[in-house]
Amino acid sequence: MQVKLSEKRLKEFERIFYPRSIAVVGASKDERKMGSRWVKGLIDSGFKGPVYPVNPSGGEIFGSRVYPTLKAIPGPVDLVICCIPRDFVLDLLDDCAAKGIGAIYFFTAGFRETGEPEWVRVEEEMARRAREGGFRIIGPNCIGVCCPEHGIPYGPSTLLGKVGSAGFISQSGGHAGKMMEIATSRRIGFSKVVSIGNCCDLGSADFLEYMAVDPKTSVIGLYLEGPRDSRRLLQTIRATSGKKPVVVWKGGRTAAGARAASSHTGALAASAAVWSSALRQAGAIEVRGLDELADTLLLFQRVGRLERSNLGIICGLTDGGGGEAVLTADACAALGIDVSPFTERTRRELLGLLGQVGSVLVNPLDVSQRSGNLQTFEQAIELVAAEPHIDIIAIYENADLLVRFMTKGVADLMNGVIVESGRKQSKPIIVISPPGSSDAERLDIEYRLSEAGIPVYPSVERAAKAIANVNQYYRLRAGNPGS
Amino acid sequence: MQVKLSEKRLKEFERIFYPRSIAVVGASKDERKMGSRWVKGLIDSGFKGPVYPVNPSGGEIFGSRVYPTLKAIPGPVDLVICCIPRDFVLDLLDDCAAKGIGAIYFFTAGFRETGEPEWVRVEEEMARRAREGGFRIIGPNCIGVCCPEHGIPYGPSTLLGKVGSAGFISQSGGHAGKMMEIATSRRIGFSKVVSIGNCCDLGSADFLEYMAVDPKTSVIGLYLEGPRDSRRLLQTIRATSGKKPVVVWKGGRTAAGARAASSHTGALAASAAVWSSALRQAGAIEVRGLDELADTLLLFQRVGRLERSNLGIICGLTDGGGGEAVLTADACAALGIDVSPFTERTRRELLGLLGQVGSVLVNPLDVSQRSGNLQTFEQAIELVAAEPHIDIIAIYENADLLVRFMTKGVADLMNGVIVESGRKQSKPIIVISPPGSSDAERLDIEYRLSEAGIPVYPSVERAAKAIANVNQYYRLRAGNPGS
Repeated sequence: MQVKLSEKRLKEFERIFYPRSIAVVGASKDERKMGSRWVKGLIDSGFKGPVYPVNPSGGEIFGSRVYPTLKAIPGPVDLVICCIPRDFVLDLLDDCAAKGIGAIYFFTAGFRETGEPEWVRVEEEMARRAREGGFRIIGPNCIGVCCPEHGIPYGPSTLLGKVGSAGFISQSGGHAGKMMEIATSRRIGFSKVVSIGNCCDLGSADFLEYMAVDPKTSVIGLYLEGPRDSRRLLQTIRATSGKKPVVVWKGGRTAAGARAASSHTGALAASAAVWSSALRQAGAIEVRGLDELADTLLLFQRVGRLERSNLGIICGLTDGGGGEAVLTADACAALGIDVSPFTERTRRELLGLLGQVGSVLVNPLDVSQRSGNLQTFEQAIELVAAEPHIDIIAIYENADLLVRFMTKGVADLMNGVIVESGRKQSKPIIVISPPGSSDAERLDIEYRLSEAGIPVYPSVERAAKAIANVNQYYRLRAGNPGS
Repeated sequence: MQVKLSEKRLKEFERIFYPRSIAVVGASKDERKMGSRWVKGLIDSGFKGPVYPVNPSGGEIFGSRVYPTLKAIPGPVDLVICCIPRDFVLDLLDDCAAKGIGAIYFFTAGFRETGEPEWVRVEEEMARRAREGGFRIIGPNCIGVCCPEHGIPYGPSTLLGKVGSAGFISQSGGHAGKMMEIATSRRIGFSKVVSIGNCCDLGSADFLEYMAVDPKTSVIGLYLEGPRDSRRLLQTIRATSGKKPVVVWKGGRTAAGARAASSHTGALAASAAVWSSALRQAGAIEVRGLDELADTLLLFQRVGRLERSNLGIICGLTDGGGGEAVLTADACAALGIDVSPFTERTRRELLGLLGQVGSVLVNPLDVSQRSGNLQTFEQAIELVAAEPHIDIIAIYENADLLVRFMTKGVADLMNGVIVESGRKQSKPIIVISPPGSSDAERLDIEYRLSEAGIPVYPSVERAAKAIANVNQYYRLRAGNPGS
């Protein structure tokens, strides 16, 4: 089974993610207000088309004329962002129909999630008017869409991150926002991000169908609390995962989480075990939090097929290599990542390169005996990468020790070697860099490595889990070539 | 059973942790060399007694005369730090006996851990000479002792951290060093830290016996690879844990980790399951890595008895509270931390304070509807703390959102409210502050909170695990009042 989208539906999504123009309803003259910030975010992020502020009070903000109504805008409008109070949304929808817009998303909240019958009915009426008016609704109670390559930031901000190939569909606007913040520092590139809110019209399955066929998206993350039509969503995941990895974080797995989810998006959470089993059968990779989701998307973006997960570990870049070797090996092995000894031949070569005293040469490899020697470091990476049974290389780097016992300059040179090796080797290299006291230096190193395409993880456990997740996908695919 | 130490042994440990004078053997005129850095570290860290550099070449470093031999030093020497090559250590030990020192620790490595019979024999001879000479050995292959209140930093550095009540005994010098770096940024206060290396004389059980009776130490961390006398160590843990929590991280739990441990300290690792079971029976809290060890020591230092672990969670300090509520509740409940709904009365008061639209009022509590209102924030914390069934309060703080949608100034004011509430409330308050893109601001906030005694965790999972660990100790103790 493959996902197919009609021309009409493709066109609908294009007007959402690649709108030619955007109107922001509720952008007032007060530049500190939410609607005005949305206008400014779009302008500052380099959105190419016109941005029309709309507010009955008129005037001008950020050099743009404020239109009193949607209908007063001279040109066509593909996408509308709505930040007005909930009492006025039904009238606005009639204007949307008259204007022939493509889609509208509602930052406006206070509908189904309140549980109040009156506002549940209003939400249903919103969906009805959109259907009749020939346009789509995202939300309400959401932050809407973000498309970095088209200059649409996430929410009322300039959060664009890096343009990349990950898609993210989130039932929480907060989680999608935090993901964009994490993506900015860790250089996870997104093609599209959408906060779907209450889903009175478009839901998670709709966006997944689009991302499944979107050529700009190669891996898709999903945050779900309680989708309205889980059956269709699971079918779509199954149809998608044969082609692209779908990584799912299901919120509301526990009784306490489900109670919170019910207040948040009015979602009814099913049993966690039922969800886990259904997701596994649909070929999704299930993760348990935002960090694991980000870690996994990052690795999917950076590595090709990873049908085995034999890890070669290098540690002791300055000192402390012995304890680091035990720590890294234990944490990986506990998560099912294979850390097998190097071949006898490689060990002999490593012995010649590093000597015995104080060295661990089995895998993990402790290079501390020649710390700071760039050439030795490079050769050690080459020897590990040349091992035929090794699939991926992890370098454990303690920024505190690097900075304290060498200098930031030497640390930069060593990281330059890692970047260069990452370019030369066909096997992926990742770096594990735990926090400590030298945080400014560590963050600078991390940013440079990330910028150069080396994924950086704050702990071995998190790196190992990401490797296990990516490996799980390709292992299942290898076993089911026809899926 | 209680740990008791003879006057003689107490005196031995006093000369180790509170030496009146220290000699550094292998401190050359070259100020960049390891031995010289040790001398400088001691001087710069405020060690009060004399520091004697020793090197046959004589001369002067950092304004101190370099003595050609240990015996040439005019005054008495309590502690010796040895950084000379392994070929010269036996002669040095004869000098130590003649000088009447208290103890010596060997940074010098290349003994039992190499597996070479010749050097295994030398290590045995070292222990014999110390016994005959009436002094003690720490190591070899270690970084030795650190005692912040006495101005003895960790290793050849100025790493002192904060003076506090945690002790740490580590079979890896690297892990102890990283712990000190983490302690510096997270303000975990240590009474004593010791890297024990190969333990040819003093071992983990010896140091544990001392810390068990040390009035400056209230909680003890242990990193073990393979102690030489596990039976005695387990007995000592049992005797200690009735009085003070003993938190143990056992490295080399997996085959890969055990291989690395064997190369590192020559340790023979027993089965992980056997260790876990023995530790549990001895009343220790077992953790699985350095981060969890630091997280747990931090919480033990800051909270009193925690016989139940009902958590009250506050989130949505700016926005995104809905998703945060689901995330925090799920992560805590998955780790067995109880997140029960607030009482009806509290919910009514919270409803009056925060309103309904967009609010989650069950526990977790989402305060985003009145974000930035300091008084409301303070009242919300008070209401949650007043719930009789709540034992500890966690505040989830997204620094990215705080800085982006408010300002760093407002964020500081809000954190000021947290600090103030932490002082006023009898129930402990912790903060969860996940990384994102605003790292400089986040680290500054984290440092201020930590400085004011509020423990800060980078993820809900890590905070929840620390709470579960601390609770486990007090729950077991409550069940075994006579232990």
